[in-house]
Amino acid sequence: MADAKKDTKTRILNAAKTLFYMTGIRATSVDAIAEKAGITKRTLYYHFQSKDELITEYLRSRDQLNLQAYKKWFDDEEGEITDKVRAVFNGVSETTSHPKWRGCGFQRTVGELANKPGHPAIKTASLHKKNVEEWFAEEFRRYGLINSEATARYVFLLLEGALSSMLVHHDPAYIHESANAAILLIAQGMRVKGATDS
Amino acid sequence: MADAKKDTKTRILNAAKTLFYMTGIRATSVDAIAEKAGITKRTLYYHFQSKDELITEYLRSRDQLNLQAYKKWFDDEEGEITDKVRAVFNGVSETTSHPKWRGCGFQRTVGELANKPGHPAIKTASLHKKNVEEWFAEEFRRYGLINSEATARYVFLLLEGALSSMLVHHDPAYIHESANAAILLIAQGMRVKGATDS
Repeated sequence: MADAKKDTKTRILNAAKTLFYMTGIRATSVDAIAEKAGITKRTLYYHFQSKDELITEYLRSRDQLNLQAYKKWFDDEEGEITDKVRAVFNGVSETTSHPKWRGCGFQRTVGELANKPGHPAIKTASLHKKNVEEWFAEEFRRYGLINSEATARYVFLLLEGALSSMLVHHDPAYIHESANAAILLIAQGMRVKGATDS
Repeated sequence: MADAKKDTKTRILNAAKTLFYMTGIRATSVDAIAEKAGITKRTLYYHFQSKDELITEYLRSRDQLNLQAYKKWFDDEEGEITDKVRAVFNGVSETTSHPKWRGCGFQRTVGELANKPGHPAIKTASLHKKNVEEWFAEEFRRYGLINSEATARYVFLLLEGALSSMLVHHDPAYIHESANAAILLIAQGMRVKGATDS
């Protein structure tokens, strides 16, 4: 019984995640989610208080998944820190070149909620983006960059620009050139450290 | 009579621009635009074929306006190219800190149209973003950067990341640190030139 309840909840969330990502959050009605999940609207509201809760859960479910993908690309690459960061951007290039890719779900959702500044999904998106930036900072500290936090923010900003530009232009060159800029800035951070150490 | 016709058309477009920017394109109905413009839906469709045409015109109207703002901040600043680029980011910081700022209209519209890849508004957005990037490249060529096109793309990507991050975090530090990264990359382009020249 508990399992069946969990299954229904998962099914609703999966339906919401697919529809929100594929068509956008405003374009997706609660009716469409219930229909896709094969349940009634009443059952949906038994499991989730509101559409807003579903939007927030949709983003929450992507937080660690996206971060794990970045970490895997980084960890699987052997070599210097610059090679590893390049590998993250290469992974992003491959993912975003998939015909079903429709932008960064966090960026798109925040964009749709621009007139609802207090929406919990915006906080979830902000937290996710902070997690990505903080992960870069951790790795840069581990690799001995002297200005690891500033560099992490630069790389994060370049990644955000790459994701946004990929949706506008659908040209992976923007991602590779974003990686080039990231690597120049990381190398600069390493040179600064070298200069200080010597 | 021709003037009255033009006035009506302008009034419709202004109503559409305000509503699209303030609440989003999906959240804005043609009825709401007609009501705000103080006309009937029939009159609206006399001037514009479709909502899609209004969305495209909304973005088209912002293309040169945004670009002119960047150019003004750049031109009004006296000093080195790095000071001028800093001035552009400062201008963006001020604009985006306004309580009525709701993100980059181009980014948000493209995000909402992610499931309509052939939409003419996406082409308009892509063209605008190319115009911004190309303008940076022109200025960098004028100021003698050896890798002006690559640097223009880096600065453009940082600006996109700054705009996107500002909507997520509402923290102008992201814009100022984006400027820092841009200036490091420009300075690097200038050093490369110096090295080649000497």
